[in-house]
Amino acid sequence: MGRRTRAAVPLGIALDATGPDTLHGQIREQIRGAILQGRLACGARLPSSRLMAAELGCSRGTVLAALDQLVAEGYLVARAASGLSVARDLPDEMLAPAAVNAPSPATHPGPPILPERTKAILRPATGLEAPMSGAQLMAFPIGQPDRESFPFPLWAKFLERDWRRPVWDMAGSCHPFGHPELRQAIASYLGTARGFSCEPDAVVITSGVRQSVSLFARIVLEAGDQAWIEEPGYPGIAEALLAAAVRPVAIPVDGSGFAPAAALAAAPDARLAIVAPSHHFPFGTVLGLQRRLALLAWAQRTGGWIIEDDFDGEYRYTGRPLAPLRALDRAGRVAYLGSFSKLLFPALRLSYIVLPATLVPVAQTVMQRISAPAPLLGQGALARFIAEGHLISHLRRTRLLYAGRQQRLMEAVERHLAGLMTVVPDSGGMHVVARPVGDLASAFDDSIATAAVAATGVRVAPLSICYRGADRQHGFLLGYAGTPEHEIDPAVRILARVLEHMIPAP
Amino acid sequence: MGRRTRAAVPLGIALDATGPDTLHGQIREQIRGAILQGRLACGARLPSSRLMAAELGCSRGTVLAALDQLVAEGYLVARAASGLSVARDLPDEMLAPAAVNAPSPATHPGPPILPERTKAILRPATGLEAPMSGAQLMAFPIGQPDRESFPFPLWAKFLERDWRRPVWDMAGSCHPFGHPELRQAIASYLGTARGFSCEPDAVVITSGVRQSVSLFARIVLEAGDQAWIEEPGYPGIAEALLAAAVRPVAIPVDGSGFAPAAALAAAPDARLAIVAPSHHFPFGTVLGLQRRLALLAWAQRTGGWIIEDDFDGEYRYTGRPLAPLRALDRAGRVAYLGSFSKLLFPALRLSYIVLPATLVPVAQTVMQRISAPAPLLGQGALARFIAEGHLISHLRRTRLLYAGRQQRLMEAVERHLAGLMTVVPDSGGMHVVARPVGDLASAFDDSIATAAVAATGVRVAPLSICYRGADRQHGFLLGYAGTPEHEIDPAVRILARVLEHMIPAP
Repeated sequence: MGRRTRAAVPLGIALDATGPDTLHGQIREQIRGAILQGRLACGARLPSSRLMAAELGCSRGTVLAALDQLVAEGYLVARAASGLSVARDLPDEMLAPAAVNAPSPATHPGPPILPERTKAILRPATGLEAPMSGAQLMAFPIGQPDRESFPFPLWAKFLERDWRRPVWDMAGSCHPFGHPELRQAIASYLGTARGFSCEPDAVVITSGVRQSVSLFARIVLEAGDQAWIEEPGYPGIAEALLAAAVRPVAIPVDGSGFAPAAALAAAPDARLAIVAPSHHFPFGTVLGLQRRLALLAWAQRTGGWIIEDDFDGEYRYTGRPLAPLRALDRAGRVAYLGSFSKLLFPALRLSYIVLPATLVPVAQTVMQRISAPAPLLGQGALARFIAEGHLISHLRRTRLLYAGRQQRLMEAVERHLAGLMTVVPDSGGMHVVARPVGDLASAFDDSIATAAVAATGVRVAPLSICYRGADRQHGFLLGYAGTPEHEIDPAVRILARVLEHMIPAP
Repeated sequence: MGRRTRAAVPLGIALDATGPDTLHGQIREQIRGAILQGRLACGARLPSSRLMAAELGCSRGTVLAALDQLVAEGYLVARAASGLSVARDLPDEMLAPAAVNAPSPATHPGPPILPERTKAILRPATGLEAPMSGAQLMAFPIGQPDRESFPFPLWAKFLERDWRRPVWDMAGSCHPFGHPELRQAIASYLGTARGFSCEPDAVVITSGVRQSVSLFARIVLEAGDQAWIEEPGYPGIAEALLAAAVRPVAIPVDGSGFAPAAALAAAPDARLAIVAPSHHFPFGTVLGLQRRLALLAWAQRTGGWIIEDDFDGEYRYTGRPLAPLRALDRAGRVAYLGSFSKLLFPALRLSYIVLPATLVPVAQTVMQRISAPAPLLGQGALARFIAEGHLISHLRRTRLLYAGRQQRLMEAVERHLAGLMTVVPDSGGMHVVARPVGDLASAFDDSIATAAVAATGVRVAPLSICYRGADRQHGFLLGYAGTPEHEIDPAVRILARVLEHMIPAP
């Protein structure tokens, strides 16, 4: 009988005592495979665990562990008198040899069928996306600060201190607006550095400008409402509005920046204006006082809202920083946006929005219910970094450094790009805009040029992607802040060589 | 003449040498204030800097610093022969005394006028929102792990080591899918702990289940497509689908969990199924093998997709964990979701999705262009935590702890809630579901009851918010994992007292 039953084991189980899997795991997987591949038919009876153990040369406990699991999973069913058999209710089509003999998913399925909206995203590179790991980061990434200046050992020490014995709020959830000490530190910093006072209560820590814009638009506007944005402008802002179901209306900037009169003419019913008055993106224009006041007057008169994006108000090399709109806002209509990612290091991913005080209670409930709070992990360390004065001294150091880099870049442009591109120096920020001149300008397409430049290892971003409308200027954004000084001249020389090849034949 | 010009200074500037502001800052702000308040009229001429300095008893350089700034900001204009005067082009309405004499925005504006969609969010508490800072965290928070078990000193050390001297990719941007070492650690962990192998390439680090679901739905579905979700289920999943413009179709679960046949009948054209086969939320049902295979067969036959939410597959107290769907997927149609926030501590906010291999290149581009990568700050430390075996031992410790807490909770329920509520023990997870019985059940509204319970300091979540349709069961979710053992019995006693008062009079 032992022999007969032994012959009834069609499992072909082969155990490997030296492999990484446990013996009962090997038995379980091989029986499972036999069932799924149809080698063990539905309803087939299994030999007893005792016989299987003898057959396989292992303990009965090992076999039972494997069989119990398969019963729990429903592959096997226990029958009162006659031991275990393969379940009868497994769907045939999953047991068809064709389906299961196919190679593993890692290798076989063809390219997936994608929806149209996904295909639309798979366009050529724009130059503004996050760089891939291992990409050779040279000149001229946008929004990238210098990599050597940040005091990482200090930062690591602050992180360690903060997490060694976290208070419960830190390890659990926290106030939906973020770490109380960080909000306090930001409020003090803004008082000193940007000249307006705000309650720490009104400071909301977010994971970026997009979250700040979406959150605010979500709170103050109805779905379908319109918001004025600058044309050109930072592409993330329009995306953030769309995510909040708000319609962006792009208002072309002129030589003095955003024009409230033009905006009113284009979309008189807009309920929100998003502007970068200290330093327009990407042109660096400073919005004049007259227009600032006109914008505030509009908000006050109509109950409109303003988002002031002060994305790199910290970097100003000539002249003095202008007082932000928020400092002039007496009616409580201005939300102020700032970010640390561009000031310290991009992986930090911490920004903030200072809300008008009346919106604080509402925003608290909205954050609790429909928006995720920014990650807490670095907030305590950042609070200490700011409160102990390290942010101010880091800004002082990098301001000198970046001013020097812009200077080197302007010299290199003069040396290598004459007759190809013109670059206007910027009194602030971390990048400049280069525009084609002469023969190059006649048929210049900045997306094509960006790709051609990228092939040499130099990263530039096309100016045209900052536009939403059809009337786009073409050119490059050159980020110099994160470009080591010695790489600037060689990179501009490479750029010149690529551009020379792009001049159309006469 | 000195006297006459002195008389012409109507600024009323009073300097305070002991105050926190610089002298030039005080001069600047007081002149700005005088202009905005209309005390200094448009076009009015200012005295020379020399006279102002004499008048104010400070250096001329101090006065010039203040005036230069006001010129730069456009409040003052320089006229060739006659020094500085107030700009003429400032909008009248901003200078009206009524507007500027209003108190500061922190105190004055009335409650803001809010859009309807924001008002809709300001409903009564649901019990599932993030707790406020300072809130007394007692029994029975949902999704909260034990606060004492996590080895924070070790975690702090890993953070410090990781950031002391970060590689450039860490401090800058990184691979859009996250830290390579963490993705490697997760792939190995899944092989050991959940029994399926995947390439580290297919692991995407996200900031939560919502981001994972939105990202996947965004990639594989067209806007307007339908997705099956479990009814009841985790509310964040429907929200995440809506954020990706995908229509959730809620399929009522039965005693065996999600029923593919019912789903096909309700929405035959759905392109995605989101299920929690290891442990249904909130009931804990385990999906049987027959239905698992039927779901896989559907995906394979129709080119549909499956998201397997294994949100607390790690906690199983009786029986053995079942093999995930992903382990059975030969056709590459299953994305697998896991999370660390519930296992380690909520502030970590790191989850992951394991993509079908064919979608990896597409997802990479989509992440680079329209989705924010998860914050890097803790990813290196978490990679080491997993790779060095600390996750496995933490799970082993907490599994024992939580099994004990569920046991204590069941005992307390039997002691105090008999005749009020019934609780079925769960073979896994971090919470149980309590349902009213007897007289209490007749008119029980769990939102009202949750609010009444919350007033005593005990946190429960209403069962009804896990439903999307009108046919809702009422009850409480009681999270025991994060509730210290000695608080369990007293909290259930409090619960009983509140519920007794809610029994309708006969």
